[in-house]
Amino acid sequence: MNVPLTPLMFLRRSVKLHPDKTAVVCGDRRFSYRQFSRRIHRLSRLLVSLGVKPGTVVAYLSRNGHRLLEAYYGVVQTGAIFLPLNVRLTAEDFRYILNHSEARLLLLEEEFLPLIGEVRGELPRLDRVLLLDGEPRLSWIHPIGYEQAIQERSPDPFPEAIQEEDSVAELFYTSGTTARPKGVMLTHRNLYLHALSVVFALHNRETDVQLHTIPLFHANGWGATHSITCVGGTHVMLRHFRPRTVLELIRNEGVTTLNLVPTMATLLLNSQAIPNYRHDSLRLIHLGGSSVPPEMVRQLEAAFGCECSCGYGLTETSPVLTVSLPKSHLREDGEARFRRAAMTGLELPGSEVRVIDRHGRDVAADGRTVGEIVARSNVVMKGYWKQPEETARVLKQGWFHTGDLATVDSEGYLMIVDRKKDIIVRGGENVSSIEIEKTLFAHPDVLECAVIAVPDPKWGESPKALVVPREGTELSEQALKQYCRQKLAAYKVPSSVELLTSLPKGGTGKIQKKALRERYLRNNGKGVPQGR
Amino acid sequence: MNVPLTPLMFLRRSVKLHPDKTAVVCGDRRFSYRQFSRRIHRLSRLLVSLGVKPGTVVAYLSRNGHRLLEAYYGVVQTGAIFLPLNVRLTAEDFRYILNHSEARLLLLEEEFLPLIGEVRGELPRLDRVLLLDGEPRLSWIHPIGYEQAIQERSPDPFPEAIQEEDSVAELFYTSGTTARPKGVMLTHRNLYLHALSVVFALHNRETDVQLHTIPLFHANGWGATHSITCVGGTHVMLRHFRPRTVLELIRNEGVTTLNLVPTMATLLLNSQAIPNYRHDSLRLIHLGGSSVPPEMVRQLEAAFGCECSCGYGLTETSPVLTVSLPKSHLREDGEARFRRAAMTGLELPGSEVRVIDRHGRDVAADGRTVGEIVARSNVVMKGYWKQPEETARVLKQGWFHTGDLATVDSEGYLMIVDRKKDIIVRGGENVSSIEIEKTLFAHPDVLECAVIAVPDPKWGESPKALVVPREGTELSEQALKQYCRQKLAAYKVPSSVELLTSLPKGGTGKIQKKALRERYLRNNGKGVPQGR
Repeated sequence: MNVPLTPLMFLRRSVKLHPDKTAVVCGDRRFSYRQFSRRIHRLSRLLVSLGVKPGTVVAYLSRNGHRLLEAYYGVVQTGAIFLPLNVRLTAEDFRYILNHSEARLLLLEEEFLPLIGEVRGELPRLDRVLLLDGEPRLSWIHPIGYEQAIQERSPDPFPEAIQEEDSVAELFYTSGTTARPKGVMLTHRNLYLHALSVVFALHNRETDVQLHTIPLFHANGWGATHSITCVGGTHVMLRHFRPRTVLELIRNEGVTTLNLVPTMATLLLNSQAIPNYRHDSLRLIHLGGSSVPPEMVRQLEAAFGCECSCGYGLTETSPVLTVSLPKSHLREDGEARFRRAAMTGLELPGSEVRVIDRHGRDVAADGRTVGEIVARSNVVMKGYWKQPEETARVLKQGWFHTGDLATVDSEGYLMIVDRKKDIIVRGGENVSSIEIEKTLFAHPDVLECAVIAVPDPKWGESPKALVVPREGTELSEQALKQYCRQKLAAYKVPSSVELLTSLPKGGTGKIQKKALRERYLRNNGKGVPQGR
Repeated sequence: MNVPLTPLMFLRRSVKLHPDKTAVVCGDRRFSYRQFSRRIHRLSRLLVSLGVKPGTVVAYLSRNGHRLLEAYYGVVQTGAIFLPLNVRLTAEDFRYILNHSEARLLLLEEEFLPLIGEVRGELPRLDRVLLLDGEPRLSWIHPIGYEQAIQERSPDPFPEAIQEEDSVAELFYTSGTTARPKGVMLTHRNLYLHALSVVFALHNRETDVQLHTIPLFHANGWGATHSITCVGGTHVMLRHFRPRTVLELIRNEGVTTLNLVPTMATLLLNSQAIPNYRHDSLRLIHLGGSSVPPEMVRQLEAAFGCECSCGYGLTETSPVLTVSLPKSHLREDGEARFRRAAMTGLELPGSEVRVIDRHGRDVAADGRTVGEIVARSNVVMKGYWKQPEETARVLKQGWFHTGDLATVDSEGYLMIVDRKKDIIVRGGENVSSIEIEKTLFAHPDVLECAVIAVPDPKWGESPKALVVPREGTELSEQALKQYCRQKLAAYKVPSSVELLTSLPKGGTGKIQKKALRERYLRNNGKGVPQGR
């Protein structure tokens, strides 16, 4: 028997087996799986009444909240394609994406009305805009708000319209580095098999209470949406990442698992409030989004008394490809274990991940030779929406080419060296920006840092470090250079260090090196006023 | 990207990530994943040299051992179909199955030569018979034995010939109850998705060391083959189920998980040797194959200090459909927890399991109303080999009809009442043989028991209990009837109880009620000499 794979199966099972269990906690609202599913069925009927058909693109512009989570099932079970937009983008980005995706419907939070308002005259394909919260007062907004509109529909099980597991369920536009954002098409099959991978790697169970720290528009919060629904766990929504809110929710809801990007981890670790909140329910903090210093793993495990793992992936891979799973025979302890846990990790069952040289051969598994990460897996996207050439550029000979550079050690653990575009080529030598960043991060007075390539008259490029010192410390460019000289090969020592009070960040809190590079490139490597 | 799902992916990953880890322990032989895979590649080349092509059926007749395990990958990666035969069958069964399946090749252990010898003149389609162990001396046996034959082939990775995930990988003939055995076709997709289900339900990890107590020819030992390979665990082979051998292997190999049928559990629990062997590596005993008394869960947990779960499935479902997973909100303890753990359980993610009445409607979830279990899942077989009518009889309107009767309680837990064919109809009342057996089993002096329907002049049918008392105890028919009267409704009390020294058992050690029914039917409900 062949039953189409779809994450909707997970919801159906959890509603059937755990109808009265809390599915979603969002502010002071709580929904059991039964209530959650009834809202989802109402939503599907509302969408159909507004003309949504299989294949229609339905866009959302919302921070993490229960209505956004409802869309992951309510939109998708009509056969439509769900497009969650990154709330950090500009009005111009939204204009481009809504037009390119040919979205017919946009559901958004009041907070984003001004942004969409700027471009609303330039969205010829968009039929309707619905407000998720607040009062629909503007003339170009559907006059009935979300809550009232869904209440008018029946909560009975909606007849699912999925025939093909390879049809597109979710569409995520990735922030382009040079070109326009590209729409990553994830199929029902991608999402189903990815969720099972994540459940395996993070050992999810029915007892899990996941705090959604990562915005769901980032490949549905690293896949946690479907893996938590799969096991019948509880989703706790987080609108804004604030350490105190995070600690409160961990204590109040008995949170067991959360995902963090390193920037979030730094914020949390710097909170003086950790000892004031119970957090013994936490069993796992999973790190990803950018490279993780081993020191950060140590600090998190010490502060929260729970396990830490790291993972790697891209929107194009649903996203998780590898996790720093332990190997029983290694029996590593202390520093060695932190280094291992901070690695890019091992491929998950069902995914083949290789590191290849430019001739397509596996690089030596020596932990030193650098190559590009490629993957062959059912978690790899179907392609980029309406961009067959871009798709063909990354899906070649049956492998997805990530554009990320890594080494692989004798145990098969991958270690990200850099994004291809982030690597610094200094007089012919490849210098990993990540390696320098990790070195700097291990300095007790460094709060955050980023290393980028800047033009260098002698070497072509040289590394420049941008460092945010911890409050109350006194750091100097000279002291940091001296520190790097003790820890790094001479050619890797930053040619310049600049102290800043903050770094530009993207949707997940990831540091935007692209913005930094542009800023310093325009000024030939010299600093510019911050905040530009 | 759509990559065909196949359990071969699991082997590939474990060989890549855990090449030096022990994959298989078999007697005093041990194979790392690298060694195991090299033997597998040699085997595939040997098979191809003997004319095996995609779609060819290759039969094995072997007890649990490393060569049988090798076939699960070595046969299948050539695109051929692997048919492991139940070693308990008769020569006539083998004749029927080998002819019906059109197997071209048979690999067998020396022990089974006499049986196959009896029918070897009646196997027109079989090209060749290969000996797995011992010296090939007989004229009708391939003159080169397995070990020598595979050593002559290259151990380099064999180019996998799987194009279609829906093609058949494994074929298992189920012992027919009335008719001829039927060949259950399991596809690559069935096996892949089933393994992930099992990994989820039994929480398998890389640290797992599985003792293969269940013969692998029973839907590959309840799917443990592929789930253990998936996580990179260790397979420990068990040729014959003997309590002392089991205890020795648990201690010597640090076994973490094993599967038992209730008969095996009884044997093990009766071993006086348990306290003499370390068994603290054990984390889970999984029970299945027939209904489990809660008392057995209690005894196993007490004796081994590990967790117990129960599961349910059929060869046609790869086999696991449900597992008695706990629910966090129930917080059951003591007897209530044992009762829960002994239940048929909850459907696993990706499987929909219902209990329906004869009109196809779900029965009331009251824990009392009986219906038939039906399932819709990717773990359900493709169909019966060359038996489209038989297939159509069980795969109807998108659901697989199991022929098993069960109730479902308000929490969604299934509880098997009986096989349709085992139910006793006494004067119009349905009496569950399982319920009576559980009652008898709770008696401290009962070692084993089975309850069957026998003809009754007044009631049409009535329940007859066949009981094996524990050694050194004194049980009487009267005492047991009296005991049942205290515990059961009057109409469920066996009309006769017979004390025996043993009960007939099938391949897994499951009691063969069919044989008992035949024995007593022929004698109009009266006893016959044992051993017939």
